[in-house]
Amino acid sequence: MGKKRVMVPANEVDLTAVKYEPETIQAPHLTGTSLKVFVNVVEAPLIGSMITTSLKKKNNIIEMLQNTVIPETPMFKPVFPPQDAEPCVVGLEEDGKPEDRVDLALKCLPHFDAASNWTGDSPTSFRYWKIRDYAYAYRSKLATPSMVAERFISAMEEFSSKKPPAPLLISFDAEEVRKQAAASTQRFEEGNPLSILDGIFVAIKDDIDCYPHPSKGATTWYHEVRPVKKDAVSVSRLRGCGVIFVGKANMHELGLGTTGNNSNYGTTRNPHSPDRYTGGSSSGPAAIVASGLCSAALGTDGGGSVRIPSSLCGVVGLKTTYGRTDMKGSLCDAGTVEIIGPIASNVEDVMLVYAAILGSSPCDRISLKPAPPCLPNLSSHESSNALGLLRLGKYTEWFNDVFSTDISETCGKILNMLVEKHGCETIEIVIPELPEMRVAHIISIGSESLCSLTPHCEDGNDVKLTYDTRTNLALFRSFTASDYVAAQRLRRRIMYHHMEIFKKVDVIVTPTTGMTAPIIPLSALKSGETNMQVSALFSWKYLCASGLVSGNLMRFIIAANLLGLPAISVPVGYDKQGLPIGLQLIGPPWGEASILRLAAAVEELCADSKKKPLQFYDILKGN
Amino acid sequence: MGKKRVMVPANEVDLTAVKYEPETIQAPHLTGTSLKVFVNVVEAPLIGSMITTSLKKKNNIIEMLQNTVIPETPMFKPVFPPQDAEPCVVGLEEDGKPEDRVDLALKCLPHFDAASNWTGDSPTSFRYWKIRDYAYAYRSKLATPSMVAERFISAMEEFSSKKPPAPLLISFDAEEVRKQAAASTQRFEEGNPLSILDGIFVAIKDDIDCYPHPSKGATTWYHEVRPVKKDAVSVSRLRGCGVIFVGKANMHELGLGTTGNNSNYGTTRNPHSPDRYTGGSSSGPAAIVASGLCSAALGTDGGGSVRIPSSLCGVVGLKTTYGRTDMKGSLCDAGTVEIIGPIASNVEDVMLVYAAILGSSPCDRISLKPAPPCLPNLSSHESSNALGLLRLGKYTEWFNDVFSTDISETCGKILNMLVEKHGCETIEIVIPELPEMRVAHIISIGSESLCSLTPHCEDGNDVKLTYDTRTNLALFRSFTASDYVAAQRLRRRIMYHHMEIFKKVDVIVTPTTGMTAPIIPLSALKSGETNMQVSALFSWKYLCASGLVSGNLMRFIIAANLLGLPAISVPVGYDKQGLPIGLQLIGPPWGEASILRLAAAVEELCADSKKKPLQFYDILKGN
Repeated sequence: MGKKRVMVPANEVDLTAVKYEPETIQAPHLTGTSLKVFVNVVEAPLIGSMITTSLKKKNNIIEMLQNTVIPETPMFKPVFPPQDAEPCVVGLEEDGKPEDRVDLALKCLPHFDAASNWTGDSPTSFRYWKIRDYAYAYRSKLATPSMVAERFISAMEEFSSKKPPAPLLISFDAEEVRKQAAASTQRFEEGNPLSILDGIFVAIKDDIDCYPHPSKGATTWYHEVRPVKKDAVSVSRLRGCGVIFVGKANMHELGLGTTGNNSNYGTTRNPHSPDRYTGGSSSGPAAIVASGLCSAALGTDGGGSVRIPSSLCGVVGLKTTYGRTDMKGSLCDAGTVEIIGPIASNVEDVMLVYAAILGSSPCDRISLKPAPPCLPNLSSHESSNALGLLRLGKYTEWFNDVFSTDISETCGKILNMLVEKHGCETIEIVIPELPEMRVAHIISIGSESLCSLTPHCEDGNDVKLTYDTRTNLALFRSFTASDYVAAQRLRRRIMYHHMEIFKKVDVIVTPTTGMTAPIIPLSALKSGETNMQVSALFSWKYLCASGLVSGNLMRFIIAANLLGLPAISVPVGYDKQGLPIGLQLIGPPWGEASILRLAAAVEELCADSKKKPLQFYDILKGN
Repeated sequence: MGKKRVMVPANEVDLTAVKYEPETIQAPHLTGTSLKVFVNVVEAPLIGSMITTSLKKKNNIIEMLQNTVIPETPMFKPVFPPQDAEPCVVGLEEDGKPEDRVDLALKCLPHFDAASNWTGDSPTSFRYWKIRDYAYAYRSKLATPSMVAERFISAMEEFSSKKPPAPLLISFDAEEVRKQAAASTQRFEEGNPLSILDGIFVAIKDDIDCYPHPSKGATTWYHEVRPVKKDAVSVSRLRGCGVIFVGKANMHELGLGTTGNNSNYGTTRNPHSPDRYTGGSSSGPAAIVASGLCSAALGTDGGGSVRIPSSLCGVVGLKTTYGRTDMKGSLCDAGTVEIIGPIASNVEDVMLVYAAILGSSPCDRISLKPAPPCLPNLSSHESSNALGLLRLGKYTEWFNDVFSTDISETCGKILNMLVEKHGCETIEIVIPELPEMRVAHIISIGSESLCSLTPHCEDGNDVKLTYDTRTNLALFRSFTASDYVAAQRLRRRIMYHHMEIFKKVDVIVTPTTGMTAPIIPLSALKSGETNMQVSALFSWKYLCASGLVSGNLMRFIIAANLLGLPAISVPVGYDKQGLPIGLQLIGPPWGEASILRLAAAVEELCADSKKKPLQFYDILKGN
């Protein structure tokens, strides 16, 4: 046994003594054959556990969980104190019809002059169509869903001929898209669209059920042990609003990685630079939206999987409050950190899609008793007053711990603009125990993922997973039940620290990621085995809560997952290489409307920088 | 990997196909030296984990948790559906003063003719003094707390000279008792008793803090790493009512066993037969109440630790609803199955003590949102109507799965009397997945206990634990984080099954234990090492959810712990050897008042059989 460490109770932590400590790298650097050997060794019964134990020791996991007296009791799921209502919001009825909620959300949006958008197009500027652009086009008979469908299908066909494959969708059926589009077109012809979302094209991440597509989680076999019989709850709500589902979007296998690397189906490329990663795990959803091919996508976010790729691809991604979306029909339906969240090119589309999908599960309604959800009323005159009252918390040392100063400077500039133009206030904060937060998170998500997966690993299914996933699972298998309980004790401490912070500020502001889109190493662009090198290395580093790439990608991500807080990533500019930079706004459990309100303001402040044409997927450009 | 098993969702389980399966024994039978070798081997890094894995496989633990697809999401703590109020109850204010609640509880009790009790004493019958007897004696100046204290102290001194030691209390300070008694005596002299509990003698289990005593959990060292600075919340509430604390009662080391065997301080003997176990883990609390030396005791119950010794010692033990008692200041302050509960010689004393100690912790108040507690109003005319409406659920095959038919017959006779004399209805029920319930429970309590203990196991503290505890911990260490999560999925299923049952019945009725007090093997009556044979053997069997003794002791216990349900053990008679038999009443989460009402009725029905004099500790007899 190691030497005992005793934590003081969370409320006695001396914040003035907290020192920011940049992450350190403690993971094996392995390439090619030696990595393959490593994977096999780490899966072996005895020597494998010695390796994982040694790695956990090096990364202080053992010290934090087994040698530390943690005075708090376990908090197994995010539990929030009683919540005050936010100012200037519109409440949404969880039990109501999705289309009624979407209608209410529409009333929350600022005035929209669709006609002028349609005539003012300039050939040099790329501008994403908003959902309201499509809605206007359909209702004015300027376009039909079937017309858009044909465009979409030819784009997909063009893609499928590329070598090596780098699919946005890993399950796609042109006829299925045509059928949905025809039905929507007919509804418009009859003058009976179901909602503002009727005829809107949406992609669904491959770990959320969308009938009749299989849900593979981007594996080669998971759909065989878990057949899809119907839509996930959130997909079904969108379908009731008339949404057209284009298929199942690519992802990092089983969501267990942040680059989007995938040797089973090919790695999705970043629309802003095809030699770079999209980020992950929701690689396909972010890329298909960033490419302009879909208005929105649904992703899952258990460790940044919506926000990271949204940031790297220059789109908006919302990590919803824990429990506000019903996870039924997703592969991560039993976790304590995951949510389903929308990705779209802009904040208002995120609001419309979110209004459709929200509504907690019956279980969560009993155990979490979430407050009714609401959206900011951006159409009201008081909205800018509500905006000006927001206190923005910034932990400067953390904020500035990024791979390139382009990121901290761009994000910092936006903060200054929010202060100057909107009257927001910036407040310096300190967040203690960031390393503990990372460890508590990886134990939670790892153990819960493993629990869902393990029974299916009969008949050699586990060795059909990528080397990347297999190394992750080997580490997850080494976590003990007592580690898991200790991690939940840490969760209560860290919740306490954040609730104290949210007494002083309304929003915590960080860059979404500590780096912009990383280059996909050449070896990973070739198919199959060789790219395990890249992904598994990242993966080990991710698991050890360190490592250059994943450390940078996940640095600001974890609080929202471990504590169930709402968070949003908004594009705020580009680095010197022209790669998108995302700003993250993290709210308290009662702050979903505030971060959406702030995100809309940020988006407006950045409108000028949105001229940059996409280099890659923008097939619908100039429509 | 083994072959996958798929469970249907809980609501699709075909109850007509459920078959009751008696437990089977799959644990090593070891004695003497070979057990000592076994303990050392099972603690060794590699071979140890092979042994635990093999044992878990034999007992289907691996199959249930790792090879089974469990469709339910994890339920980490008992979560109850919204609760209806029970009829004919008095609500108690959790935030109010303990003495006010005790006052209300007093008003719920039936008329009490203290004076006639005091004159009608017959020398041949043993009758426990009730709290109201003491209260009458103090208020009538027939006795003072200081008088009782002296009696108590001489009894303890008589005890301490016995060989081998078999202490009721492992921390006792005569001066401390005298001091409290003098203060209470003075309050009576001044006519200002604090409550009906003033001057009442209460013992506290050694895992609940009672200042200035150390809390050792019956280990030799735990108090050194966890000094006691103040009373536990429940103890402090009792102190505010004027209770006199006699010291810290003996227990099975760290609560990890059901016999009460303890080689550190000696094994408490059963007051009804000194060559027999008290049951555990609250061995001292039950024995000191059964001996008539204390009116009540506080125990903890995470796996029957209040109910089992109460049943074996012929007293009343209440396992309170999860979350209703504040665990702060107990060694098991962070678990999902443990509660603090009162043990007393009769139901009304249990009600009075419970009224004083109840009140959930601030954490639980947010996350569990428990309904306000209440007690049955036994003084009202409608109480017998409310009693007559109770539907009693009996799973006959389970009910009859006992070591001796004396138990099932005695308990069955009481059921018949409840039907005949009070108009209750007996309904046959089926409870599916009892083996899964046992496994989910042992994983939960084991992992949570281990998590609290592990950081303190530095410097060889772990090898200072008994062989018994060490074998338990070796098994607990083998549970993985994924096992823990899978166990919580089982918890949700089993909660569903029970909530369905509680739509049809108001109370589930079982024997408390499947056997009466077992004999303490001769080897265990000698001091120290040799009795590891007995206790560790029991312990392994307990852990494997099998084994003759602990299987029988725990057979009916688990649902109340895993699901947080209220349950009470009431003495209902004696077997052919004159050993007490307990009846267990398990209520739904909203049924605490109902089981207390029913328990009071059962006690009255059994009043005639209470003549049996105690053979052992009854030093105060005939007072």
